[in-house]
Amino acid sequence: MSQQRIPVGILGATGMVGQSFINFLQGHPWFEITFLGASDRSAGKLYHEATQWRLDGPMPASVANMRVEECKPLPGAPRLVFSATDSYVATEIERAFAEAGHCVVSNSRNYRMESDVPLLVPEINPDHLKLLPLQAKRGWKGFIATNPNCVAIPLALALAPFKPFGIKRILSTSMQAVSGAGYPGVPSMDILGNVIPYIGGGEEDKVERETLKILGDLKVDHVQDLDAKVSAHCNRVPSIDGHLVAVSLELTQKPTRDELLQAIKSYAGIPQLKKLPSAPPQAIYYMDQEDRPQPRRDASRDRGMAVFMGRLRECPVLDWKFICMAHNTVRGAAGAAVLNAELMHVEGIL
Amino acid sequence: MSQQRIPVGILGATGMVGQSFINFLQGHPWFEITFLGASDRSAGKLYHEATQWRLDGPMPASVANMRVEECKPLPGAPRLVFSATDSYVATEIERAFAEAGHCVVSNSRNYRMESDVPLLVPEINPDHLKLLPLQAKRGWKGFIATNPNCVAIPLALALAPFKPFGIKRILSTSMQAVSGAGYPGVPSMDILGNVIPYIGGGEEDKVERETLKILGDLKVDHVQDLDAKVSAHCNRVPSIDGHLVAVSLELTQKPTRDELLQAIKSYAGIPQLKKLPSAPPQAIYYMDQEDRPQPRRDASRDRGMAVFMGRLRECPVLDWKFICMAHNTVRGAAGAAVLNAELMHVEGIL
Amino acid sequence: MSQQRIPVGILGATGMVGQSFINFLQGHPWFEITFLGASDRSAGKLYHEATQWRLDGPMPASVANMRVEECKPLPGAPRLVFSATDSYVATEIERAFAEAGHCVVSNSRNYRMESDVPLLVPEINPDHLKLLPLQAKRGWKGFIATNPNCVAIPLALALAPFKPFGIKRILSTSMQAVSGAGYPGVPSMDILGNVIPYIGGGEEDKVERETLKILGDLKVDHVQDLDAKVSAHCNRVPSIDGHLVAVSLELTQKPTRDELLQAIKSYAGIPQLKKLPSAPPQAIYYMDQEDRPQPRRDASRDRGMAVFMGRLRECPVLDWKFICMAHNTVRGAAGAAVLNAELMHVEGIL
Amino acid sequence: MSQQRIPVGILGATGMVGQSFINFLQGHPWFEITFLGASDRSAGKLYHEATQWRLDGPMPASVANMRVEECKPLPGAPRLVFSATDSYVATEIERAFAEAGHCVVSNSRNYRMESDVPLLVPEINPDHLKLLPLQAKRGWKGFIATNPNCVAIPLALALAPFKPFGIKRILSTSMQAVSGAGYPGVPSMDILGNVIPYIGGGEEDKVERETLKILGDLKVDHVQDLDAKVSAHCNRVPSIDGHLVAVSLELTQKPTRDELLQAIKSYAGIPQLKKLPSAPPQAIYYMDQEDRPQPRRDASRDRGMAVFMGRLRECPVLDWKFICMAHNTVRGAAGAAVLNAELMHVEGIL
Repeated sequence: MSQQRIPVGILGATGMVGQSFINFLQGHPWFEITFLGASDRSAGKLYHEATQWRLDGPMPASVANMRVEECKPLPGAPRLVFSATDSYVATEIERAFAEAGHCVVSNSRNYRMESDVPLLVPEINPDHLKLLPLQAKRGWKGFIATNPNCVAIPLALALAPFKPFGIKRILSTSMQAVSGAGYPGVPSMDILGNVIPYIGGGEEDKVERETLKILGDLKVDHVQDLDAKVSAHCNRVPSIDGHLVAVSLELTQKPTRDELLQAIKSYAGIPQLKKLPSAPPQAIYYMDQEDRPQPRRDASRDRGMAVFMGRLRECPVLDWKFICMAHNTVRGAAGAAVLNAELMHVEGIL
Repeated sequence: MSQQRIPVGILGATGMVGQSFINFLQGHPWFEITFLGASDRSAGKLYHEATQWRLDGPMPASVANMRVEECKPLPGAPRLVFSATDSYVATEIERAFAEAGHCVVSNSRNYRMESDVPLLVPEINPDHLKLLPLQAKRGWKGFIATNPNCVAIPLALALAPFKPFGIKRILSTSMQAVSGAGYPGVPSMDILGNVIPYIGGGEEDKVERETLKILGDLKVDHVQDLDAKVSAHCNRVPSIDGHLVAVSLELTQKPTRDELLQAIKSYAGIPQLKKLPSAPPQAIYYMDQEDRPQPRRDASRDRGMAVFMGRLRECPVLDWKFICMAHNTVRGAAGAAVLNAELMHVEGIL
Repeated sequence: MSQQRIPVGILGATGMVGQSFINFLQGHPWFEITFLGASDRSAGKLYHEATQWRLDGPMPASVANMRVEECKPLPGAPRLVFSATDSYVATEIERAFAEAGHCVVSNSRNYRMESDVPLLVPEINPDHLKLLPLQAKRGWKGFIATNPNCVAIPLALALAPFKPFGIKRILSTSMQAVSGAGYPGVPSMDILGNVIPYIGGGEEDKVERETLKILGDLKVDHVQDLDAKVSAHCNRVPSIDGHLVAVSLELTQKPTRDELLQAIKSYAGIPQLKKLPSAPPQAIYYMDQEDRPQPRRDASRDRGMAVFMGRLRECPVLDWKFICMAHNTVRGAAGAAVLNAELMHVEGIL
Repeated sequence: MSQQRIPVGILGATGMVGQSFINFLQGHPWFEITFLGASDRSAGKLYHEATQWRLDGPMPASVANMRVEECKPLPGAPRLVFSATDSYVATEIERAFAEAGHCVVSNSRNYRMESDVPLLVPEINPDHLKLLPLQAKRGWKGFIATNPNCVAIPLALALAPFKPFGIKRILSTSMQAVSGAGYPGVPSMDILGNVIPYIGGGEEDKVERETLKILGDLKVDHVQDLDAKVSAHCNRVPSIDGHLVAVSLELTQKPTRDELLQAIKSYAGIPQLKKLPSAPPQAIYYMDQEDRPQPRRDASRDRGMAVFMGRLRECPVLDWKFICMAHNTVRGAAGAAVLNAELMHVEGIL
């Protein structure tokens, strides 16, 4: 089988997000890891020598003895590369690969808001892929496609079924797991038995801006943001995986709760219709129990790719309120990028 | 000193809230516990025999060998009683005491929304005490005064400085500590490394309704609710003490941030002006650090009576957003009731 | 396939251990759940009506609409039943089934120390199955076989490779996860940010006594305990799954560390040799990293059936010290019982 | 009052241990902080500029605007200095101060095992102060006195009452709070819902060696270690403050449990007899409840200086087993050093 699979590279393979990519791609039916790029300090070593494995379970045997390469578009690098590079180096590295003709499917934030770069959630905006050819104007032979921030993904997916009813205002308060901060990330002295009402790196700004681009409409040469207002409160809580988001929103139309539930439960996109390998069978799982979804109990379903909603009820201030949740390092990071690549594959772009 | 202090009773003395009252009243300069009321099952036993002490530190020696009495207005019961009774019995017990001429200062929810019962936060609405004489119409020789829910207290206090600017809409998302659920309360299997996006007992409804009554205006025979809309999302997080609330709000006026900060920092009420024994020196502590307040690090300041705010910033959806927090079993329960009693004492009501 | 599978029943199917059995048996190649027994209160309802599902992920669809039966050896009950009954009813219920000719494979403590009842760890003492015929003397047409306590299992498995070197004294200090206490189990107020140096229900006594029986030698009509001394300290810590045990032990012989590592790594039993469906490929995983095994990161490997060791080093007081760990509700409970049944099946006993 | 107090300096004042010293010395009746030494990077700044305050509650106002000095025996440095310096610089810094005539009361590990340096627990070995004059042979005008590791302190104190009965062997398994690792210390990804069966920096070795020196007997020019064997298992658990230690020990004599309890409860030393300001009223609190002491509930009693024991019972392997606990950053660090200085003051050494 491995002969027929598409070779892929991981840029930033030794970090936490890189490790998530490696874990998530184990047993993938279409993609096979053939290239592991990392910093100069790691290049030349075997992967198990260069890497402190931080994820649960053992380091996959298939990569343990692969040689780590520099993060450069070297001759042996495969056409398709997943970028898990840190944002302070991602701009350079991703551009170098795109220039050299690679398909860069990135989890980094650096290019997300560029007007010619799609910010993809395959269930929502597969047509945004049409931005990719515009990148030729940059003199690139390849391209960069990105996935959103780990809060913006479940938020946008939960909002998508409301879009036909006219979204006007969105208020989101997220309770985010520590894995979102990487490793070593959040000191235990800060978070044990505590909540930190702040997340650095412009988190709230990212949630606010990315959500509107994801839900925006493709115009000739850019995406026109959804014409709505978003306000994000971001908090760190002592959960391990799974970002939970409490949302209130205002609509222009006045659908009934049943109409909304119907829209949520029947929501589906290309990943579901074409049964992409990493797609959850259902785009959104609406849970009827009054106390769900919960990060620890629900985030890992469908290999971490499921998105959950619950508690849809009227909001006395805006129109509706609900809870949504997804696994932040899978559906909100590595798995999102892999699903993006699967989408591109079935769309004939790779 | 003890001869001159005012004797007080604790109704529901063996439960978690009752224990909080006992702890909080240790060394109180005005009040002395002389009566411990509990269920029939406990009555007749010594307090240390009847009680599994759940709070940190040892059971205070002053109560350990007191005899537990029935929760009835018996001859020996002092005039002033604090009610920590469970809501399924509080209606009867508190009425019996009020009928018999006792001053019932209650933490229970049962009478909070009655039109002739004040829902007090002494910094905000001390004039609501004028409702008390109306209870004579019930045929009571005494009265019941109540304190609000443990989320409504920090929320209302943080909102109070905004009131002059015209509060129109309030959206609050609370991240609540496990001590709020009492003992045994939240099973560890439910909350370790998790968030539960739901709190039973009508929590969201209580926050929404009580906040408007606290901030309401006294009319001849009732309190007219604040004319605003409130929406509450309540979540349980794995912190121990301290409810943190993320708030967005809309105002009719358009003050500057400096005007608001000025209003917050200078906010003070009778507890501060008269230096009531349990009053925090400042009504609201505004913290300038971008990641504060935090429950574990801040909730216990000023013996748990402080209320904190932080991160005041513009809200893209409503007008302003911020974080507030207070210790839920002290400022949000036992300490709130004691402060109410101190207010009544200086107002000459006891 | 289902026609050829062996029908099995779960006694105590609605509790946490019963739920673990149901989860663990999903997709089992040999066993198929056809009977769910529970208390009178639940009998007659559908499983999803009778049960608050407490485990991660959804309730398996295959049982959701099965009718719950009384815990009695009714005509429809299959020959093989797994007992997850609470200890205060297990004595009666298990006897009734054994009397009526059922093969009772029990996780309950009640019969573990009976002289004619095997206390099985299939890798260690499969010959103890020869006790089963002795139960005919009780007038039983069937029998009861048991698995040990959730600490005794990893402890005994970790000790088994040392047995040829003459075990004299064992000192074990366990740090036990909250799932071991069931649901609601440990209140979060007791365990968040805390350690409780005590576990009720005679936990330390069970560890001390069961370990010696597991490692004992079969005589004609009983098991002769291992001639060694065991001391157990049991503590509850805020982990979710996985009991970690720090062990010191004294041997009569003086093997080298390499000889011991060799014995540990090559240790294998019938489950490995016959590749029983629930057997981990390796009986004991020795981890070379200095800070492993860890409950959260390792307990779920091999579907929760793996047993881990690490940090084997000389002990200044006894001879050797090390760490061992296993998933307490799988390898230490439901999975242990299923592996016992698989052993019995290949041994021709079912 | 401040005129009559003894001026003291804190070396390493900006780190976590330095902060603990500052917190603990607030309101001290004998000592007044007049000097804050830190790295070159911090020197010259005001303390609040140089320091990220990590402890609960606000930074004490009394130090916030003090100027941070270099960690050198400058003219203005007071004679008595507390050293909270990191071990990789402590050797040099503490020697420089001792050479220059300062009394260095150190929490660092560097000199603890030097033969002419006392490793003090004031209740146990105040006579070890007689080692101090030996340091003149090093050419020092001052001296260094040290306190033990944060596990060795509660362990040694709990063992001290057993010493008259002949301690032969000690087996200790500690469950240690995250504050022991400083800041940022233990990553939350490592410890949330987990246990790490390893603590770096030679922790087990320190516990084993220091315990014997603390309990050793003073000879002419050195301390002769207690003639016993110690084995330590050290584990990190998700508690915040308070190291809990499960201990088994063997004695040469065979006292009854009542004799031992009597020895424990009546144990007292100079701190208790002379009522030193930081001394807990009782040297050891024996708790009768079967599930105590517990870190979160008990560690902060007596301002964090109390040492607790519980669960004294027979050990099937050695003779006795029990639990002990103390606050690791107070009684196990800053508070220990302050108590040492108080001892030296009443002994006329300062």
